[in-house]
Parts: sequence; structure tokens; C-alpha cells
Amino acid sequence: MKKLINDPEQVVAESVEGFALAHEQVEASFDPIVVYRSQKSQKVGLVSGGGSGHEPLHAGFVGEGMLDAAVPGPVFTSPTPDPILKAAKIADSGKGVVFIVKNYTGDVLNFDTAAELAEFEGIDVRQIIVNDDVAVEDSLYTAGRRGVAGTVLVEKLAGAAAERGDDLDSVVSIAEEAVRNTRSMGVALTSCTVPHVGKPTFTLDEDEVEIGIGIHGEPGSKRIPMADADHITDQLIDPIVEDLQLSSGDRVIALVNGMGGTPSSELYIMFRRLHQRLNLEGISIERSLVGNFVTSLEMQGASITLMRVNDSMLELFDAPCNTPALRKGV
Amino acid sequence: MKKLINDPEQVVAESVEGFALAHEQVEASFDPIVVYRSQKSQKVGLVSGGGSGHEPLHAGFVGEGMLDAAVPGPVFTSPTPDPILKAAKIADSGKGVVFIVKNYTGDVLNFDTAAELAEFEGIDVRQIIVNDDVAVEDSLYTAGRRGVAGTVLVEKLAGAAAERGDDLDSVVSIAEEAVRNTRSMGVALTSCTVPHVGKPTFTLDEDEVEIGIGIHGEPGSKRIPMADADHITDQLIDPIVEDLQLSSGDRVIALVNGMGGTPSSELYIMFRRLHQRLNLEGISIERSLVGNFVTSLEMQGASITLMRVNDSMLELFDAPCNTPALRKGV
Repeated sequence: MKKLINDPEQVVAESVEGFALAHEQVEASFDPIVVYRSQKSQKVGLVSGGGSGHEPLHAGFVGEGMLDAAVPGPVFTSPTPDPILKAAKIADSGKGVVFIVKNYTGDVLNFDTAAELAEFEGIDVRQIIVNDDVAVEDSLYTAGRRGVAGTVLVEKLAGAAAERGDDLDSVVSIAEEAVRNTRSMGVALTSCTVPHVGKPTFTLDEDEVEIGIGIHGEPGSKRIPMADADHITDQLIDPIVEDLQLSSGDRVIALVNGMGGTPSSELYIMFRRLHQRLNLEGISIERSLVGNFVTSLEMQGASITLMRVNDSMLELFDAPCNTPALRKGV
Repeated sequence: MKKLINDPEQVVAESVEGFALAHEQVEASFDPIVVYRSQKSQKVGLVSGGGSGHEPLHAGFVGEGMLDAAVPGPVFTSPTPDPILKAAKIADSGKGVVFIVKNYTGDVLNFDTAAELAEFEGIDVRQIIVNDDVAVEDSLYTAGRRGVAGTVLVEKLAGAAAERGDDLDSVVSIAEEAVRNTRSMGVALTSCTVPHVGKPTFTLDEDEVEIGIGIHGEPGSKRIPMADADHITDQLIDPIVEDLQLSSGDRVIALVNGMGGTPSSELYIMFRRLHQRLNLEGISIERSLVGNFVTSLEMQGASITLMRVNDSMLELFDAPCNTPALRKGV
């Protein structure tokens, strides 16, 4: 294992320390680790978090127009309730807090416990479970569908709603609408290596890829022989379009997401195919994001996310945001 | 070789097609390939380019406040004079054009030829050669120092100067000042594989890294046993600080750049060390960038760039820009 790290047990703490030093939008506190906005504002608070190793998710999306606080757990491991509670307190301005939680058993349990503890302290907490991955039902760490790259779009829309002053019910309702309309699917060309484990999470032969891979390297839906980008991209598009029941006239936001070790040129080749395919079916890509948003350490691979949108959702997507990993209109 | 590509010979064309579809700031023309701003403006034109495989450089920096046009050659291969001339014509509004060229023999030759052809057509062309890599003198493809990640900072400052309406002499002078004050050094943990070659450019043992690596995998200054991030980061910082003769009271912009396959968490661990070290020496990091800016396909590794700055350089760095890969204040 070759990684640019010091002590494998200190990867998250040292990385967060560097992250907070590099970006004026955020600050970090330690023991336990929480990343939060430098400038607190009076609005519904948004908190997300989960295992580390998916950077820039979630801390990269802390800032104006998106999250108020993020809780980075150990690599690929849910944070405990303690830092989540701390984040809720930081994010609360008396108007309530929304937890945006990716659907993994550990995350759901720990955010749930933190929500109860926060309620004891008088904070009104609501929870949104993101479960956009169409690849599998009931995976290695999940009951139901996993939450993957679509989380960024949910955070963007809910964040914009909170920023313009929507109340708790409205922010929750918008986040739920975003979740309902978002689906993703990924592919892995290589595994990744968790620092404190020190060896690859799984193995893939030189001539195969895994379709429907999870962001922690959990098994996908099938392994197929290595094929060209257009063929592989089709394997990701088809289940999403089918599950969202997209048809001619529908409008979407498209996210082509790199898993960490994929050159951006390859992501754009996939976006080209996605654009061709949706164009043929009369589905309009209204906005797009291409890049590393929800990664799996240094894994080579990619995922596609589509969110069906209407005008009011597009308005929220286009609203200004100023976070380390996504900046619009400010 | 596993890559999300179709025909290896079509990687650049298909990727640029997807890139232009994904980003409203840019358009692309083909045969030969040039990427340029969607909205032309009346100012000194800025053109850069070079071999592909370093994305987002250069096309990712086309847009308001940075480049007017970029010329992506074949992977790791200089573009010919023909597309460079085409880019010069697109970028020229009668106020002259500056070519920003990384110092590789092929690039220097082809941009030089294109400059002559452009002069024949009445375009006033000046050239800036970026040679920020302190690792080696006279490398595999270079006489003198190579141009690497510092190019982004040169493009940012020169782009801001052109955008505010500086004339050709002033833009050239600012670009030259930026080059004079910028140094970089990189490290590779793994090789990369050029698509049409199909096998790794070089090999590194599981327990060694290459200090001073070039962005095409050219040999660096030494191979050392794998070490922790702080030690490796120090190996990059020391030659830069020495070469720039930085001392207490100096101010810098710091860029920690990923080579393509490095998780951003590792880049932030390096930034943490950089911050510690410069802090100890009384050198102030005034602004920073951390992420993939000048890559080598899927190579695992990173580089550090420091640019010594004064107030007027900082003002140019802070000026608004709206490009696919860097956005500030708009």
C-alpha cells in the first residue's frame, strides 16, 4: 500500500486539519471531529456526514448555500452519535436542523440516536434518508437501497431552500422531493485500499469491471468483461432511466461522478455518451456536474446520477453556493 | 489496461466533445481541436495548450478571467502549429495574443511556428515560457526546466490582467513576473498509462516513490523508499523554498496539486505539512488551491507549487473567474 499519509489512524484528523486550513469557508473542531461554516447564519440548519474516504463529500459541501456542518467518521465507518450531536448544536439557530443521511445501517442508527439526544436538548431535528443507488436492494451494510452520489444534489437543493429562508417543513419537503427523483449507479475498474486495513477491499481481474459497485466497494449487481466506455455507460444509464421512468419531455440534472482515481477525460467521454443517449430519448439535460464529488478513496470507476427536475428544483440548483467543492454565483 | 474509453485514438476528441457539452463557458471546434470561450470579449487574448492527459489543464481554464482558447494536443504530445494558429485567430480581438507555453521542446517549437504564422496574418503574438519545475535541468523532452502545475497560477494572473483591460505589454510583463516567482516539484507513487500505448510509462516498486517526477512520467531527481507524507512533502518543499530564496516575511500562494489518482484527503495531509513548515519559517500562505489542476492521467502522486506574491499579484489572483475548473467571485 502506497499512500501519502502518516499514521493510518490519523488520516481523517490530519486531512481535516489541512482542509480547514486551506478553505476560508470552513472551520473544524476536533475530539470529536466536526467541520462547520466559518460564518453561522440564522436559518434551518443542515447537517450531513458519514464515513470518510468519499471526499469531497461531505465536508467539501459545507458553506453558504449547502451544509452548515459535516461529520466525517473514520474511513468507511459511520461517525458515532456524539459528533453528530455536536454538529446539530452548531447548526441549530433555533429554527430546527435537518440531518441528510446516506442509507447505511450504521449511519441510520447513529444519526437516529443523535437526533433523539438533540431532541432532549430542545433541537427540532428531522431526518432525510438518501437511497439513490439502483444497483442492489439490501447490500452488505444496508437494508434497502444505498445512498451514493445523489446525496450531493439533495444537499444542494435542500441547502438552497434553507438559505433563502424556508422553514423546517419546507426544507424537509424539498429534500424528500429531491430524493424521490434521484437515482444513481456506479462501476468500478479497480478496488481501493482502506488505510488502516492496508490491502485492497476486493479484487477485480485485469479484464473485468464491476457494475453497480457500492462506494465502499460493496458488491454490485454483476461483473462483466471490460468493454468500451459507451457500452459501460449504457449499463449505468438503462437501470436509472427505467427506475425513474424517464420519458420524452422529462428534464434532468446529470452528475457524472469520478470514484477518485479516474482521469476527468474519461468522465467526459461518459458524459458524451450520456448526452447522446438521453438526447435520443427526448430527455433534456438541463444542468450537469462532471468530476469527483463522492469518491471511494483512489478507486478507478465512475457513477452516473440523474435527478428529474422541474423549474423550482432548477432554481434551487442554480442558487448561489460557496463551498470548498462547489461554487456557484458568488 | 482498464480505462473508460472507446477507441484509444479518439480519447481526446470524444473527451473534448463531452467537455464542451457539459460546460456553458466553453465551445469546441474539431479538425483541428480547439476549445474556446462561448462569449468572445474585446481584450488581449490568452492562448495555452499542450499535450492532453493533464486535465483540467488547459481547457478547464478557458473562460472569463483566464484563457480565451486552449489547444489540446494528443495525449502527452504537443499540438501542431495548425490548431495553435486557429486558437490565436479565435483569441485575437485586435489587441494581440499571449501564448502561455509549458517548457517542452515540442511545445516551444510548435507554438513558435504558430506565432510566426499568426504574425504573417497580422496578429501581434507574444510568448511566455513557463518553467517552474525545480526537479531537474534538461529532462527527457526539455532543454532547461520543465513547465508543470505553476502554469495554472500564471494563467490566472495573466488572465485577470487581460480581463481588466491591460494592454499586451502589461499582460506579458505580469505573466513574466508570475513565472519568475513560481516553482514546483512533484512526486509519483505510481505510473500512468497512455491510452494508445496501453502499458505503464514506467514502473515503481511497491516500496519506492519518485521525487521530482515530470508530468509525463519523465524521470525525476531520485527514487527513495516509500515514507510518510510529512517526510515526502518536505522533500518537495525544501528545493522550492531554496530555489525561490524564500525567507521570513515572504508571502506565497500555495498549490497542492493531485496527479489524477490521488484521493483529496492525501492532498490535504500534504497541505497541512506545508502549512506547518512555512509557518515555522515565517512564510505566509496568503491563498491556496488544493486539488487536481495539472494531472498525469491516473497517476498517483502530487506536486507542490509556491508563487511568491505581492499585493498586486494577490489582487489578480483574487479577481473573478468563471471557468469549468476554477471559479471565483462570479
